[in-house]
Amino acid sequence: MTPPPNAAFAEAVRKSFADQGALHLIGAELLVVEPGLCRLRVPFSPSVAQHHGFFHGGVTGMLADTAGGLAALSLCAPGMDVLTVEYKINFVAPGRGVALVASGHVVRAGRTLLVTRMEVDAIAADGQAICCAVGQQTIMAVPRPRPES
Amino acid sequence: MTPPPNAAFAEAVRKSFADQGALHLIGAELLVVEPGLCRLRVPFSPSVAQHHGFFHGGVTGMLADTAGGLAALSLCAPGMDVLTVEYKINFVAPGRGVALVASGHVVRAGRTLLVTRMEVDAIAADGQAICCAVGQQTIMAVPRPRPES
Amino acid sequence: MTPPPNAAFAEAVRKSFADQGALHLIGAELLVVEPGLCRLRVPFSPSVAQHHGFFHGGVTGMLADTAGGLAALSLCAPGMDVLTVEYKINFVAPGRGVALVASGHVVRAGRTLLVTRMEVDAIAADGQAICCAVGQQTIMAVPRPRPES
Amino acid sequence: MTPPPNAAFAEAVRKSFADQGALHLIGAELLVVEPGLCRLRVPFSPSVAQHHGFFHGGVTGMLADTAGGLAALSLCAPGMDVLTVEYKINFVAPGRGVALVASGHVVRAGRTLLVTRMEVDAIAADGQAICCAVGQQTIMAVPRPRPES
Repeated sequence: MTPPPNAAFAEAVRKSFADQGALHLIGAELLVVEPGLCRLRVPFSPSVAQHHGFFHGGVTGMLADTAGGLAALSLCAPGMDVLTVEYKINFVAPGRGVALVASGHVVRAGRTLLVTRMEVDAIAADGQAICCAVGQQTIMAVPRPRPES
Repeated sequence: MTPPPNAAFAEAVRKSFADQGALHLIGAELLVVEPGLCRLRVPFSPSVAQHHGFFHGGVTGMLADTAGGLAALSLCAPGMDVLTVEYKINFVAPGRGVALVASGHVVRAGRTLLVTRMEVDAIAADGQAICCAVGQQTIMAVPRPRPES
Repeated sequence: MTPPPNAAFAEAVRKSFADQGALHLIGAELLVVEPGLCRLRVPFSPSVAQHHGFFHGGVTGMLADTAGGLAALSLCAPGMDVLTVEYKINFVAPGRGVALVASGHVVRAGRTLLVTRMEVDAIAADGQAICCAVGQQTIMAVPRPRPES
Repeated sequence: MTPPPNAAFAEAVRKSFADQGALHLIGAELLVVEPGLCRLRVPFSPSVAQHHGFFHGGVTGMLADTAGGLAALSLCAPGMDVLTVEYKINFVAPGRGVALVASGHVVRAGRTLLVTRMEVDAIAADGQAICCAVGQQTIMAVPRPRPES
């Protein structure tokens, strides 16, 4: 991976994360941000569950989508923002445990489009991680709207 | 579409919907359930927003995934439940408005696997609907675990 | 759908179709081209079969991908070409019959990105059409490289 | 990866590969087969090209789909066959070079469904490999139809 064009990439990712109400709603935390990589965590609670008491697939999908998008943002030039063009996710095991950890990493960073892959692990009470979802995503880099003065 | 094998299909869908904590968290409502079709709605609030003040893509994805899954459930035999194998979603316009409405309909109902397509509309204050996402999904029908006695 | 920006859209689609060696290899024909819509056909032969004597899924995918791409091209300005960013396809029935017919239609035409949906029908000897695949695709419009003088 | 349930897995993969007419049509070769992994190659020729003289995306897709499916087959019990439920593929660079090499590996092997990931490299004349496509796929294991006596 080439060095990040955005020296302040970690700050840009943290700011984007902090601004997203829906992520607070599900209790998400930002664990790791590196050039082309982002890792998020959400602890289990009944409010993020489906009817069997596991993590709701929609929460798994939201976390994966966000991890991929922030991984892409970490490689964007200053003043750019990211939009999810599309993503695809396979659920490969029940999201059962005390937390979900989603990792996104950039597979290809073009000027306009970035492609990422995502993995989501369900973390058991003893710390064991089981992969519960894998995804692939297309991200578009767009100029950030200027704040109104 | 062949007539539903499950005469109590609407009740099964309502019960599944009611049991999912994550759907209550985002304020989702069940609008329509018919054989092979389901429509859900979520009103706008800051807690389901991203950093530009639109609906968060993860909420759009969760709503689409659930609408497709419940559409599939409406065609399943009594005692069966549904799992999302995978889905793919394209975001085609900003989720800007007073509400999102997601529709899922079954394209193909096999014995084990069902394929659905989803559309999500963003509803403006004047009631106008603009399609903001389209998706495609694979669902697996599985026997519902028996409640413990 | 807005009227096509490219008055010569049908000619552009026919030229793109004619220039693709891989389409001739599988025996594909261009059936219909309208603004935002394209329909292709490939007759059955052992050379496009898989090991059960049905159409190979790869051929089904290639036909669907091309139908979506050409549907997108029909809405592009003169001098533009299309690239497939990504597609996703579900196989919902065996590709069994005397021909495959793939239809692509544009769901959303943005300036840079277009989203299409595709359906592939297997045509039986008696003319009956059975849907064997459904897909969803992202297309990027790019300036056509100028022919060297 | 657990040891393959099918001691004759390589033979089963080779037989399935040999029986697929569409793979011969594009000139595909089977490079590697290991438990949960398969690698295929197709040399460049005008008949597998698109209109810019690169590999046609449909060929890239077909090769990726087949590599994933055969990787899944390598983990199936004797007497089982595989069907592609669906796949998704992102094209990340032009398919330019003397050959394409597609690798499929199994991410999750369930009893009925298997999930794979695929990468396709374009090989330059000097042997350098550039990733031109990444994909993700769902495979269903089904009993092989008995040969008629």
